[in-house]
Amino acid sequence: MSSNYRNFRNNVPWLIFFLEAVFIVLFYFLFSGDDANVSFISYPAFQDVNHMVLFGFGFFLTFLKRYGFSSTGFNLLIIVLGVQCSALMGGLLDLLYEMPQEHGMTRITKATVSTTAVVISAGAVLGKTNPVQLILMTVLEIIFFYMSRWINNKLLQLSDNSSMMHVHLFGAYFGLAVSSCFSEPLPRSEKNASTPKSDLLSMLGTLFLWVFWPSFNSVLVVDKNWKLIYNTYIALAVSAVTAFTLSAMTTKDGKFRMAHIHSAVLAGGVALAYTDLRVQYPWIAMILGLLASVIAILGSYCLQRCLNPPLKIHDSSGVHFTFGLPAALGTLAWVILVAVESGTYFPGWGHLIMFRVGAFCATISIALITGLITGFILNLKLFKTAPVSKYFEDQFYWEVSFHVKRAVWDYL
Amino acid sequence: MSSNYRNFRNNVPWLIFFLEAVFIVLFYFLFSGDDANVSFISYPAFQDVNHMVLFGFGFFLTFLKRYGFSSTGFNLLIIVLGVQCSALMGGLLDLLYEMPQEHGMTRITKATVSTTAVVISAGAVLGKTNPVQLILMTVLEIIFFYMSRWINNKLLQLSDNSSMMHVHLFGAYFGLAVSSCFSEPLPRSEKNASTPKSDLLSMLGTLFLWVFWPSFNSVLVVDKNWKLIYNTYIALAVSAVTAFTLSAMTTKDGKFRMAHIHSAVLAGGVALAYTDLRVQYPWIAMILGLLASVIAILGSYCLQRCLNPPLKIHDSSGVHFTFGLPAALGTLAWVILVAVESGTYFPGWGHLIMFRVGAFCATISIALITGLITGFILNLKLFKTAPVSKYFEDQFYWEVSFHVKRAVWDYL
Amino acid sequence: MSSNYRNFRNNVPWLIFFLEAVFIVLFYFLFSGDDANVSFISYPAFQDVNHMVLFGFGFFLTFLKRYGFSSTGFNLLIIVLGVQCSALMGGLLDLLYEMPQEHGMTRITKATVSTTAVVISAGAVLGKTNPVQLILMTVLEIIFFYMSRWINNKLLQLSDNSSMMHVHLFGAYFGLAVSSCFSEPLPRSEKNASTPKSDLLSMLGTLFLWVFWPSFNSVLVVDKNWKLIYNTYIALAVSAVTAFTLSAMTTKDGKFRMAHIHSAVLAGGVALAYTDLRVQYPWIAMILGLLASVIAILGSYCLQRCLNPPLKIHDSSGVHFTFGLPAALGTLAWVILVAVESGTYFPGWGHLIMFRVGAFCATISIALITGLITGFILNLKLFKTAPVSKYFEDQFYWEVSFHVKRAVWDYL
Repeated sequence: MSSNYRNFRNNVPWLIFFLEAVFIVLFYFLFSGDDANVSFISYPAFQDVNHMVLFGFGFFLTFLKRYGFSSTGFNLLIIVLGVQCSALMGGLLDLLYEMPQEHGMTRITKATVSTTAVVISAGAVLGKTNPVQLILMTVLEIIFFYMSRWINNKLLQLSDNSSMMHVHLFGAYFGLAVSSCFSEPLPRSEKNASTPKSDLLSMLGTLFLWVFWPSFNSVLVVDKNWKLIYNTYIALAVSAVTAFTLSAMTTKDGKFRMAHIHSAVLAGGVALAYTDLRVQYPWIAMILGLLASVIAILGSYCLQRCLNPPLKIHDSSGVHFTFGLPAALGTLAWVILVAVESGTYFPGWGHLIMFRVGAFCATISIALITGLITGFILNLKLFKTAPVSKYFEDQFYWEVSFHVKRAVWDYL
Repeated sequence: MSSNYRNFRNNVPWLIFFLEAVFIVLFYFLFSGDDANVSFISYPAFQDVNHMVLFGFGFFLTFLKRYGFSSTGFNLLIIVLGVQCSALMGGLLDLLYEMPQEHGMTRITKATVSTTAVVISAGAVLGKTNPVQLILMTVLEIIFFYMSRWINNKLLQLSDNSSMMHVHLFGAYFGLAVSSCFSEPLPRSEKNASTPKSDLLSMLGTLFLWVFWPSFNSVLVVDKNWKLIYNTYIALAVSAVTAFTLSAMTTKDGKFRMAHIHSAVLAGGVALAYTDLRVQYPWIAMILGLLASVIAILGSYCLQRCLNPPLKIHDSSGVHFTFGLPAALGTLAWVILVAVESGTYFPGWGHLIMFRVGAFCATISIALITGLITGFILNLKLFKTAPVSKYFEDQFYWEVSFHVKRAVWDYL
Repeated sequence: MSSNYRNFRNNVPWLIFFLEAVFIVLFYFLFSGDDANVSFISYPAFQDVNHMVLFGFGFFLTFLKRYGFSSTGFNLLIIVLGVQCSALMGGLLDLLYEMPQEHGMTRITKATVSTTAVVISAGAVLGKTNPVQLILMTVLEIIFFYMSRWINNKLLQLSDNSSMMHVHLFGAYFGLAVSSCFSEPLPRSEKNASTPKSDLLSMLGTLFLWVFWPSFNSVLVVDKNWKLIYNTYIALAVSAVTAFTLSAMTTKDGKFRMAHIHSAVLAGGVALAYTDLRVQYPWIAMILGLLASVIAILGSYCLQRCLNPPLKIHDSSGVHFTFGLPAALGTLAWVILVAVESGTYFPGWGHLIMFRVGAFCATISIALITGLITGFILNLKLFKTAPVSKYFEDQFYWEVSFHVKRAVWDYL
């Protein structure tokens, strides 16, 4: 092992311990008072989101053949750190604005939803960062995401729930910006590939995301509306159908490609999260689901050929077209729906749309800028970026049974 | 690749797109009005069923060593198409009878339960159909299942819930009939086999079915009765115990066989679905679970040796004894329970039983006849049935990483 | 196959059938009357526990490379037998004390929680027992656990919920005692090892346990308190963070070890189960989670080197440090919390603590003594213990596809 590696060994545990100690001290000062008495979020609703984030993203990212331990393990690490960090940020903001502390259930649910941004970003840099970098990215991204939400809420008058739903958008573009600061993997790296078994585990993760997406979209809506759940489900269903269609259209032999299915089946759910209960009828949700899926697959086709190579961005798990583009489509759909719906009888709609589009642009800009800053920090020599030859390799971070010969492991 | 295959490439995407367009248009006309205000089905109840169908059946069918992508992927495709198709059929019938539209939650839950019929049938033809055929089968089977339910409800006076629970029966016999129209696989095909890893994933699917079966049985019962859930659980528990016992008895060395466990642990749950809240005490459910499991394993033993070879039926995942026979047992149990219970003080029970047995026979007959018709249609030259040598092969429909050598993949 | 094996074949099915028949008869006599009308346990709460026990423990134990079928299959068998046996024990005790029968939902939830003791013990002897021994152990352990709970409840005045939460403690030490009666596996057995894929499946199981642990801790608490759920979640989160830290500290190269992560992420949840709603603020839960994780990993380091070799205990899945030590820590925390909290204004707290510590010691003692007795019985010649060379081997109990060559299977 290289000397870089030994440094890494020395840093990780103490960094985490220090962070955890800070968290405990802050929890002591912030959350030792009385909480709100009533939570609009029930335990099963939180559980659904928790279930989805942990299993869904954990296994969604296991498609790399030699990176399964890191995908699921670091996903857990990111989530548990992110949730604590995010709960503290929320508590600090409440303190600053002299608001009463939220109910514990509400707090960890919001924290879990916020952490999704980090998990999505981690997908973009999957296999390229070491744990120290991931932990630092988690803390920084949570802080920047709260900053972005604060701007959306206070300056651009978005509701709390709408600004929270920008989580996919923020996560995707932040991840892309960070990823652009890392070296690209070797062009024909054998390790940057999947095997049938790893793709199947990834399908398991995708299904977890797919099944719990309606819960995720509705968890922070205060007056629960079954239509949101129903429409999300229908949009996801149409996305899944379209994913199969377009996958067969865009591959050489008309075969289906697992990677298409993984990303496009979720697109409808992402798009719908940005429409804010504005979708009244299922057929609108269906069209949105169809378009989102089209954008995700065409996006994957175009971006990977035209945009990423010149910009030298390597987006490991395709978060740009899985979460970024459908989020943009959802915002566009919101604008059209508001324009159509309110155009005739509600004079102030132009204003409303301006603020919304502003929030959208602000979120992307902040994500890109803070992402670049974070990427720059992570690439400081201090943090010992893994050499390109060690990308996508569990063995660099995990003890792996020695009797598994390298040659055979490739096929597992 | 053969020319058949190129045709397949051209057909699939456009067929699906056309179907999806039709669905969206129909949704526009049918479901743009007001829905019912109250749903007796909560989101968690729907979620359980959705979870079960997607994970349970998806992974239940992954036991074929080279067919994991198709098992989980096509399962998703069938479900999302089936749910839309089924929701439309329900809406059309409500329109015809001038009934008010159902609540959205109720609609998609019923649609998901109905789609189970297609998923079960797909188990019988697993590995033998191409996606075009699967899609066509989905649409036709949903239509025929609604037809069968209509006859059960209107002519044979079954309650809505009871006729819905015939879904396993219909699915199993429809699947068998369709399967009988396809060529049998080569007798010692290497591909029609499982590996330890694929069996383990299949166990994961089975456990999903096992855990959520009580939810499935009770989801459409209007006045929820904990006894149904309790008895289903107990019946499933006894089925699982019996499955281990009989598996050790019927195999050569007294070892357990995974395939037995997979099918027999569920038998008690299927049987109990047909008893309609008539089971008052847990011991009855236990005996039913025991008998269902016995029938499933002995059935698997007898059917695969005596019935299937002369009739040239190849039942890939054993739906006949997993779902068909326990359903018959459940109906028999219902008859006995009604006879014993009402014999003394309720004069009209003979009538009641006649109708129920009639509904049972009608469902099987309709399933077999419409299954044969569907099988005939699917085997038209137009739909390019896969050659027998391409059965049970993911690579025929999916892009599979090229660097996985065939020889090694066999063992994965 | 040896003659031992043929005996095994003859015994298993009849033993199980006989047991099941006894269960049905007892259910007939015990549970044919009226149950309580109201259950404080809802179906979703039971479902969470059921989900956790079946998936969590089933896949948690799949880390042995050639023992996946037995890990998941026998886990199911133990649970279904244990739940029935445990429901009967509860019913018998209610009858003895002339109490009204409990609601069915309460009954099976309590039975599922009790069965966790057996599942944990089975982890300690994983790979060393044959099914007959497992079944016998299930029945005996359930009886002894009820005995231990009876002593805790009646003599030591513990609440029903507190005595039930001793389930981890009892399970761990009972399992250790049983394990000490079996021969140790060969020192460098190839089979007693994991592969990357089996470790990944085990991670899936661990995540199931992690996600549902708050449900498990709160299911039997009558007046549901969100703080218990919230604190358990926070404790688990800190445990997970600490697990990564300490794993990197204690391994040679500073790499993470999957086995550490598996056991230590849960430690906080176990510890918190013993504090009985006494934890008022999240920071206490966080410190507890941190300490529990430290104890689990240091325990795994020390026990496997210092304690187990001289005592000739082989603890297959490390239940001692995963469940045993954190449980002890949780009790200690309870004592400290009670002392600090009540010290000033509540005079009888010394008494309270004495009883609690007494209950703790009683549970461990009973577990060790009855475990040794059970281990002795299981090792009678009658039960044909598997030879050491057949430890950790699915093929001894399951039909395994013949075309999978041994050499390749090792790597799967």
